[in-house]
Amino acid sequence: MLLLSYQIMAEPRMSSIDGKLAEEFAVPSHVQEVKEKMAAFAACHAEVGRRVVLITSGGTKVPLESRTVRFLDNFSSGRRGASSAEYFIDSGYAVIFLHRHRSLYPYTRLFSTINMLDALQLRAGDGEGAGEVVVDQQVLPNIARVLKRYNEVKDGGLLLPIEFNTLSEYLHLLKASAQALSSIGSKAMFYLAAAVSDFYIPASEMPEHKIQSSNGPLQLSMKMVPKILSPLVKDWAPQAFVTSFKLETDPTILLDRARRALDTYRHQAVVANVLDSRRGYVVVVTPESRDELVVTEGDVEKGVEIEERIVSNLTTAHNEFITQQAAGRK
Amino acid sequence: MLLLSYQIMAEPRMSSIDGKLAEEFAVPSHVQEVKEKMAAFAACHAEVGRRVVLITSGGTKVPLESRTVRFLDNFSSGRRGASSAEYFIDSGYAVIFLHRHRSLYPYTRLFSTINMLDALQLRAGDGEGAGEVVVDQQVLPNIARVLKRYNEVKDGGLLLPIEFNTLSEYLHLLKASAQALSSIGSKAMFYLAAAVSDFYIPASEMPEHKIQSSNGPLQLSMKMVPKILSPLVKDWAPQAFVTSFKLETDPTILLDRARRALDTYRHQAVVANVLDSRRGYVVVVTPESRDELVVTEGDVEKGVEIEERIVSNLTTAHNEFITQQAAGRK
Repeated sequence: MLLLSYQIMAEPRMSSIDGKLAEEFAVPSHVQEVKEKMAAFAACHAEVGRRVVLITSGGTKVPLESRTVRFLDNFSSGRRGASSAEYFIDSGYAVIFLHRHRSLYPYTRLFSTINMLDALQLRAGDGEGAGEVVVDQQVLPNIARVLKRYNEVKDGGLLLPIEFNTLSEYLHLLKASAQALSSIGSKAMFYLAAAVSDFYIPASEMPEHKIQSSNGPLQLSMKMVPKILSPLVKDWAPQAFVTSFKLETDPTILLDRARRALDTYRHQAVVANVLDSRRGYVVVVTPESRDELVVTEGDVEKGVEIEERIVSNLTTAHNEFITQQAAGRK
Repeated sequence: MLLLSYQIMAEPRMSSIDGKLAEEFAVPSHVQEVKEKMAAFAACHAEVGRRVVLITSGGTKVPLESRTVRFLDNFSSGRRGASSAEYFIDSGYAVIFLHRHRSLYPYTRLFSTINMLDALQLRAGDGEGAGEVVVDQQVLPNIARVLKRYNEVKDGGLLLPIEFNTLSEYLHLLKASAQALSSIGSKAMFYLAAAVSDFYIPASEMPEHKIQSSNGPLQLSMKMVPKILSPLVKDWAPQAFVTSFKLETDPTILLDRARRALDTYRHQAVVANVLDSRRGYVVVVTPESRDELVVTEGDVEKGVEIEERIVSNLTTAHNEFITQQAAGRK
């Protein structure tokens, strides 16, 4: 009986947010193709018992004009998502990496502060290897290790990168991913680390052309972005383990906001963090627990990243969740 | 007598924009240091008869909160500025490259669409060269040539990169650059290709913390950014050759806007372009002329870039400008 009810819940339902998505946010032309790719990726990994995490990463671009010159953006280098992807793969997951175009990328992120041409050397002369371009491993001491790992991950087909630019693309691709992952049930995790805009201008209210500065100061009136977490948890991927992120600048309201999100959306976990301390301290909040995760300056010197601890915490919780789901179904 | 009047004009004057800059746009802490570096760079190149161009490139970030999570941005990959820098260097100029952090960079821009790890190979085995990391020149066929040129430019000290992120940093660093270049007079060119916001929120009117979406839809009221071209041309670098850019989405208003800018600011040239066709067509407008520059699809296939033609057009005009200035002073 319970199994039946799960299947009914997983049936696509037309929520009010679905309607809004279709009306006010342009559907990217490749969404169906991407959805099939994600579904195939998930199915093939689930078949061999591998879990799949959908990571969102980077900020969303919110256009102010149809032919866009100006846009609203959210601060995010994509570092959290990119490093977490590596730790999920190390923990045995396959990763769909839904990220902002040109935001940080797993493995390559480790060299993002270096101009690659400063790390290359051209072999001169006529001898063997002349004309070759070689990496200077004094400049990039970890390159051989990282490249080896990157190639293992690529050869293993463990990382499926999908790009977005605008908020519209993000919303539609996230919905598609949730529907694509619904077939693997509780084996799927959502790790929603992207910095998504809360505000937008509907296409119908947007000027076509570049806003002219000669018209004087700018008054912008922006609408609320629909809370996509709600249909994601209830309708699109109701069996998945869902983790959202809460970033605040004011630490005094952080935990309250995190708990309120859990109450509202009824998902599994919120990673709560404050802008200034986000690389050293986060709180993982679930309906039953509150885990403070810390990396000290000493840890950082040893190369420890807080994402390793976040991923470790969540993969353990995901384990328990899968066990409970299985027990509940018996 | 004329020489004297030039010197008087070049003296720093406190314009109303200077006051606004100081009051409403936070001064970056390193501005004085950068200014000295730019002045030394300009002086050393001018001494050997080399001209210096200040290129601005990329979009500006306009924070909506003091502890910034959200910001307004302008569409710009920085491609125009980065490729132009290469052509200016090829034409004998030294380049100060004032660019948005993480926007496209001269020479490396040519590999920006490739994940560098996809182009590297690890030499396995125990033989000579084992453990080396080598570029696969099938993936990056131009790498040896580009690396050679990049190193020549670096060894020649021909490129001084300066980064900005926010509009405030951009405005203060541009002012500093203009003052730094004023000592080399008409040998300096300004090539203002950055996509600079026309609107901002003054620090005094900005909320400290992240705007809460629970407060409902967002009403933003943004002020006009002071037109920095005006004091740049009149006060900070009155002898320099100044080129501004005009990007529109509506082609019917483009030339009128370009001419109006020349009338208002009395500088030397406007590069006018339309968003959709900017890589194939621009118009260089001066008080006396209107040059249409085109690259066809056939040109593009041969690797011709429109920036080569823009730079060629402007360096010729700069030549004539220097000759006229010298004649005027006699």
